[in-house]
Amino acid sequence: MTNITTDILIIGAGPAGLVAASTASENYPNKQITVIKEFEKAQVPCGIPYVFGKILGDVEKNAMSCGGDVANISKIVDTVTSIDIEAKTVTATQHTISFDKLIFATGSIPFVHKNFIDSIPLDNVFVMEKSYDEVKRLQEYLKDKKKIIVIGTGFIGVELACELSTVGKDVAIIGGGHVLAGSFDEDMAINAEEIMKDMGVKLALGQHASRVIKENNIAKSVELCDGTILEADVIILATGYQPNTQLAKNAGLKLARYGGIWVDEYMRTKNKDILAIGDCSGRRDFITRDPSKVMLASTSAAEARVAGSNLYSIKNLKGFNGTIAIFSTMVGDRAFASAGVTEARAKQENIEYSAGFFEGMNRHPGTIPDASKQSVKLITMKNSGQIIGGQVIGDKEAGEIINIIGLAIEAQLTVHNIISLQVATQPLLTAAPTTYPIVKAAQNTLKK
Amino acid sequence: MTNITTDILIIGAGPAGLVAASTASENYPNKQITVIKEFEKAQVPCGIPYVFGKILGDVEKNAMSCGGDVANISKIVDTVTSIDIEAKTVTATQHTISFDKLIFATGSIPFVHKNFIDSIPLDNVFVMEKSYDEVKRLQEYLKDKKKIIVIGTGFIGVELACELSTVGKDVAIIGGGHVLAGSFDEDMAINAEEIMKDMGVKLALGQHASRVIKENNIAKSVELCDGTILEADVIILATGYQPNTQLAKNAGLKLARYGGIWVDEYMRTKNKDILAIGDCSGRRDFITRDPSKVMLASTSAAEARVAGSNLYSIKNLKGFNGTIAIFSTMVGDRAFASAGVTEARAKQENIEYSAGFFEGMNRHPGTIPDASKQSVKLITMKNSGQIIGGQVIGDKEAGEIINIIGLAIEAQLTVHNIISLQVATQPLLTAAPTTYPIVKAAQNTLKK
Repeated sequence: MTNITTDILIIGAGPAGLVAASTASENYPNKQITVIKEFEKAQVPCGIPYVFGKILGDVEKNAMSCGGDVANISKIVDTVTSIDIEAKTVTATQHTISFDKLIFATGSIPFVHKNFIDSIPLDNVFVMEKSYDEVKRLQEYLKDKKKIIVIGTGFIGVELACELSTVGKDVAIIGGGHVLAGSFDEDMAINAEEIMKDMGVKLALGQHASRVIKENNIAKSVELCDGTILEADVIILATGYQPNTQLAKNAGLKLARYGGIWVDEYMRTKNKDILAIGDCSGRRDFITRDPSKVMLASTSAAEARVAGSNLYSIKNLKGFNGTIAIFSTMVGDRAFASAGVTEARAKQENIEYSAGFFEGMNRHPGTIPDASKQSVKLITMKNSGQIIGGQVIGDKEAGEIINIIGLAIEAQLTVHNIISLQVATQPLLTAAPTTYPIVKAAQNTLKK
Repeated sequence: MTNITTDILIIGAGPAGLVAASTASENYPNKQITVIKEFEKAQVPCGIPYVFGKILGDVEKNAMSCGGDVANISKIVDTVTSIDIEAKTVTATQHTISFDKLIFATGSIPFVHKNFIDSIPLDNVFVMEKSYDEVKRLQEYLKDKKKIIVIGTGFIGVELACELSTVGKDVAIIGGGHVLAGSFDEDMAINAEEIMKDMGVKLALGQHASRVIKENNIAKSVELCDGTILEADVIILATGYQPNTQLAKNAGLKLARYGGIWVDEYMRTKNKDILAIGDCSGRRDFITRDPSKVMLASTSAAEARVAGSNLYSIKNLKGFNGTIAIFSTMVGDRAFASAGVTEARAKQENIEYSAGFFEGMNRHPGTIPDASKQSVKLITMKNSGQIIGGQVIGDKEAGEIINIIGLAIEAQLTVHNIISLQVATQPLLTAAPTTYPIVKAAQNTLKK
């Protein structure tokens, strides 16, 4: 057992933990920062689906950079077993660490529906774990398998299904509604479904998987609610994640509604020396103000910057409050991106909204060789015109167009700001100045 | 002579004129709108350089869509000869038009330095005109010519030089400083210069062209200030544009400092029934509040939307005031984009600023096959942290990244807003959440 004393202790070295460490290091150069992590090797979490297809093709290519050596940051590989908040000590298998400030960045673990918990021990049933060893194990296992069933139609499920189809696997994906339904309305999501079908992915949508049928230690098939049986060599559950908070719970910290560690806007628990950031923290939705289940590395990184720069005093007023669900992905060669609320969600939350849609070309004139279609939907508050959501389909730049919409949401801009917005337009890079899609969609929200 | 009476008359059918017509049509469906334009065929103004290289390769491929038939918009091809503001009539070669509201959208004409005015009539000296006929004439003339000199290192000059080099021309470009110096600081501009050199473009930078040397009706060479002589088969002047305001001047309208028609924030002249939008209008800089020479189709379109929706009453408070110089282009296979002030301009204007720079990759992990470098420079007010400028170099999505920075400038956000900004990040589409370049550059402005 080694005894260590540190100023700032961070548990976890995912995106949240790493960004908190580097931000704290810059803001408090005289403090000693210690990061304790469970495994030596780490994967880029969002890169994991691409390990299984042609794009990365190997777990080794998805290594996460640990940020290099910084003078006042030490790293320890060990497993934390308990935390004494009062005594300000953390006990791990081989270390006891005394701290002044403690940041939980313990991330998330796969969520498995109760119907499938019994199936997890089967040899050919996998959940989407994020550790190097588990990703490697799945990659090896898939090598000589053909028929794969992916359960779950969120971003990870869709990305995984598409990637597996590019390396000749026979893939079916099962989900209760349209794909990516949390982030896209039906009119947008069906475009992703068409592409997936063209890629050869079988879509079993509109009904949930009800059980796994097994023989000995091997799953043979999945039964859907309507009794349909889909056979499989491998079943992968991509049914979301839940905050990893066992340690925090054992330490007596208060949890928020969906199980994340309760924190204020500066990511502090009720004890101002104990913070939580990233997927293990409890989030609120920027628009509805309700607790939010959204888990995103980019949001985690933003939280980590807030935590890392306000540890010993509030130096920077938090710019924006609440989580906007801001996502992007590719399906085939098209980018799909979303921010804020969908129309469906706005209805659910009883928000009086207007929606505007525009489809144009991403280059101008449309004769530019790589020109392709670009669609934007904007969702605004009916009375004030404040922008509360957006969805984009297009070429790769759609991944940044959504960040324009995200900034408009966070800065609480209105459709009137957008209508007089000045944008850079260029034939080879963007839509035409006369039909810039965010502006046109904004104008269309004003038509009744 | 045909007599016409219309509610809203728009002179000019470039991006400003067309957007004003469509916006007015949507806002005032019961008003009759007439657009009078000089030529039947129009070119996409920003697409013109690409007519001369491989990307479009032909003037016919750069046709500007005129926006289709709209019930309450009529179009007339004719040349306006005079305007009587008091009588509210416009006289053209074949029409007399009475109007209630008049919008000048007469655009800009090439600016030629006094040293070169005498050379314009020479058979092989061209200015960058925007009409179909003139673009066609230059395209035809260039066909069997080899040695081309481009004078002027702004966006049009650089784009034209690069494009001509892709079809085997021997191109030299002449300019007094670094290329694109109005929009990029030296540290960024030299990257464009390296690419141009690799493309085979000869750079004659750091000194102005002093005169054209001719024999009979043919220019033979250009002499630089230091006496160097560069031979040429064709000389193209890409030395900027000036507001096209002869008609407005003759009609007695007040002009602003750089010759544009004086307008208020709703694009109205001192006479509230007479408006001016686009390149022919007088602009102010968003940051310095000085008169601005910036001419951009996207800014023109924004002005046109403001004018078109507030013609008969102020319906929408203008969201943002003043022109931000927001540009993008490609040099070789790299996108270069800029918004707001450069460091050089900030110094010139005696602005106390901080600059932050970050270079990373545009995908994550960096092993994603199409990953490439992405650099962002941000310029902020030293005291308040307000964002006043940005420069980006990267792959094509840089053309939209600059629009995130542009929105941050227009919405007067600060570096603290950016540090807690939530962005969508995705392996195939963007930088990593831990190193999103706008956020990292923002953090770096805070280091002394």
